[in-house]
Amino acid sequence: MKSLKIAILGTGNVAWHLASTFENQGHVISHVYDRDINKAEKFSLDYFNASTSDSLDLSEINANLFIMALSDDSIEEVAQKLQLPSGSTLVHTSGTVPLNSLGYAQTHNIGVFYPLQTFSKGKSLDFTDIPICIEGESDETIELLRNLANSISHSVHLLNSNQRKVIHLSAVFACNFTNHMFTISKGILESNDLDFDILKPLIVETLNKSFDISPENAQTGPAKRGDMETLDRQFESLSNDPAVAEIYQLVSQNIIDSYQD
Amino acid sequence: MKSLKIAILGTGNVAWHLASTFENQGHVISHVYDRDINKAEKFSLDYFNASTSDSLDLSEINANLFIMALSDDSIEEVAQKLQLPSGSTLVHTSGTVPLNSLGYAQTHNIGVFYPLQTFSKGKSLDFTDIPICIEGESDETIELLRNLANSISHSVHLLNSNQRKVIHLSAVFACNFTNHMFTISKGILESNDLDFDILKPLIVETLNKSFDISPENAQTGPAKRGDMETLDRQFESLSNDPAVAEIYQLVSQNIIDSYQD
Repeated sequence: MKSLKIAILGTGNVAWHLASTFENQGHVISHVYDRDINKAEKFSLDYFNASTSDSLDLSEINANLFIMALSDDSIEEVAQKLQLPSGSTLVHTSGTVPLNSLGYAQTHNIGVFYPLQTFSKGKSLDFTDIPICIEGESDETIELLRNLANSISHSVHLLNSNQRKVIHLSAVFACNFTNHMFTISKGILESNDLDFDILKPLIVETLNKSFDISPENAQTGPAKRGDMETLDRQFESLSNDPAVAEIYQLVSQNIIDSYQD
Repeated sequence: MKSLKIAILGTGNVAWHLASTFENQGHVISHVYDRDINKAEKFSLDYFNASTSDSLDLSEINANLFIMALSDDSIEEVAQKLQLPSGSTLVHTSGTVPLNSLGYAQTHNIGVFYPLQTFSKGKSLDFTDIPICIEGESDETIELLRNLANSISHSVHLLNSNQRKVIHLSAVFACNFTNHMFTISKGILESNDLDFDILKPLIVETLNKSFDISPENAQTGPAKRGDMETLDRQFESLSNDPAVAEIYQLVSQNIIDSYQD
């Protein structure tokens, strides 16, 4: 595709990862906005031709595309206040904020460019396999975003705002809650002078199996087997932590109910 | 270590993986027992010198070590009925059955040889990183099992029966429950015509982060942020599946409580 001139709003992890990846693929980061000008300048050091500002009047900025990599809370307000060059396109990068939050922006070329990944500062990620979820108010915007997404990833998905919400909810279960299960597991081990490391090979192989044959076919354990003796014994052994015991009971019951047929 | 002559009791996944790995490391599988002689014979085809039987009188079998890779329920009963050569060592491979379930066996050389991993038929696994949890009634038994474990893995742990129970419980959270979270997540996606595959890169990176910086430092999501608006909205969107909604609420609350300081 032809190289784009891109202005980035925000200087956090998402901004940093997107900007680096776009530049690596031949696009140009022409401007960096942050309400803290020091952050914008520090960030733009990585992108030699990028101008910087802490003002939302970006009407003179030379860019085709304005990407808001901002906190969910601030997207709607910033979009309303923003001054843009005529004909430019404005997108946000959030999994949860609907497209129409950009409805009061100065441009009708609005969209969403949501990379479905967790980003850590300073740790670069290969975008090739990262799903990019795009949405656009018009066919032209969709086309622009699809080309940009294709230039960094082979996993590009046109999704509406509701589908993005569903993905975000499913990620709460598959990522946030699984991580919390690791925290609980680690706590149980450590209160018995055992190290969480001992479980890691089993966790990795369980994940491989789940991906290979799909999670409902990979389920194992006392609840899956309907092994009431082990369930009762394990539940009782958690009596010193009622909240964890309740999670144990509720999730076990849901597994039993899911596989009882 | 000197090569051992090993008799395997049982022909399931654990039996198959252990037998293959022992033979690869120069030990000899000299005998295979299964209550179904056809299974024993089919299994022993892989081990040319292995005799077979469906009888629990193994007193004439030429082996130093008898490994019971049987279902948890049957271990105690089989141990009681078993006839063994004098001076031989008997172990089971279970994560949950205590050592003293072998207390009525004919030998005092009893122990546990528990590989902390999930095994699938036909998919070979490298044992080098698999934790082997050993326990023994006597120093001699512990020494024998430690040498055998060291011959296949560099992660060997002397644990008592209570510690093994703790590991098993922690694995229910870290493996069984996380896998069920994947199942729930997949269900949410599929009921909205979305594919579980879209989440896989995020799941893998979340796991990497959790292992890198430890799960309590890797936690993200609306509950961690105390984002009540998203929590309420997501909870309401689950109203068509009250059991899943309850899990959502309980795990979210536990995350909130864990990070509120």
